[in-house]
Amino acid sequence: MDSPHPERQGLNMIQAGNTEGISDIIRFVLEIDKLKGVLRKVKPTGEDRYENTAEHSWQIALFALSLEQVVEISVDVNRVIAMLLVHDLGEIDAGDKFVFAQDGWEDRKVVELRAVERICDIAPLKVADWLITLWKEFDGGGTSEARFAKAIDRCMPVLLNLSHQGGSWLENGVTYERVVGRVGPEIENGCPELWTYMKEKLEEGRRKGFFAATS
Amino acid sequence: MDSPHPERQGLNMIQAGNTEGISDIIRFVLEIDKLKGVLRKVKPTGEDRYENTAEHSWQIALFALSLEQVVEISVDVNRVIAMLLVHDLGEIDAGDKFVFAQDGWEDRKVVELRAVERICDIAPLKVADWLITLWKEFDGGGTSEARFAKAIDRCMPVLLNLSHQGGSWLENGVTYERVVGRVGPEIENGCPELWTYMKEKLEEGRRKGFFAATS
Repeated sequence: MDSPHPERQGLNMIQAGNTEGISDIIRFVLEIDKLKGVLRKVKPTGEDRYENTAEHSWQIALFALSLEQVVEISVDVNRVIAMLLVHDLGEIDAGDKFVFAQDGWEDRKVVELRAVERICDIAPLKVADWLITLWKEFDGGGTSEARFAKAIDRCMPVLLNLSHQGGSWLENGVTYERVVGRVGPEIENGCPELWTYMKEKLEEGRRKGFFAATS
Repeated sequence: MDSPHPERQGLNMIQAGNTEGISDIIRFVLEIDKLKGVLRKVKPTGEDRYENTAEHSWQIALFALSLEQVVEISVDVNRVIAMLLVHDLGEIDAGDKFVFAQDGWEDRKVVELRAVERICDIAPLKVADWLITLWKEFDGGGTSEARFAKAIDRCMPVLLNLSHQGGSWLENGVTYERVVGRVGPEIENGCPELWTYMKEKLEEGRRKGFFAATS
């Protein structure tokens, strides 16, 4: 794929405040509009439709912004939010992948990265590079910020399913063990206090029959 | 309305890392889920439905994050983003108000503030106070951050309508003069370069017949 930024190889510079810069930002902003059409597996409160990835991204950004203030964790919350705003952009080309799918995750990463590069490259070079860096940091999970962001991203659909008496777990035959095994380590790794809280809620959900029976 | 925070009058303190704090954050995060059900007047790209305020909030946050890097403006972009994430929360109780409505804006502000207070008060005191402060700053428009945020908020539906050959302007009988008079000063005030760009695009839209005829 040809890069729209041949200058990436040469002068790594962008003139601040030029019309071309604004024009490219706006093409980027209109391209990401498509994330509103990518559907996930859970339904918003009171809605008989599946949520889309754009509204999910908003919710977890505000979740991070507020949670960071009450937990004992040292992260740059602004970086966490920036990551959460971009972390699912690749779904515009790749679609949503159900978190409880059993395989295909390695191929998936390649496709998502290619998508993120295509989309972000619409923006001016400096912006594109930075957004791709954020996406890779989230994906790699090597920083406290990425781990905190991932914990929140994993936690949100669990909260929605719990508040919908099982929601997509029952619809898709997902067991309690599968949920705890899949989301537990990432939530605990990114925000131990949040996992302490969630563990109890998941156990409560199990007692109430919110999960598929273990086969 | 009784405040869930009687301590607001007394010790202004919250224990960091307590389970109660997390529990209140999560009640707040589930309450704001309702913003996904508040419909606006424009349609997302390729979708035959109106966009909701949650996905709109995500898009303008990412718009701000990227635009700030290419314009000559000095703002704390993290504060801008935080404001954009909360600025429409009041619509959960008050609904969306079409930006080109001619009157009712003063009453509307009172209702929205009451709503924002109700919703944010679900969160722990410290978080609630901060989110309400952000909302008021955006609403008051007294800082560069609030003005930049407002410029982006005003700009986004204009961009979507332009990319939909007039969209909600034609559906609702809105003229070119009404659009320029309503959004122009706020966009120019918050980000002059963005207005220079938008002015041209709006003029182009007028030539293409994207607006209702002047009565």
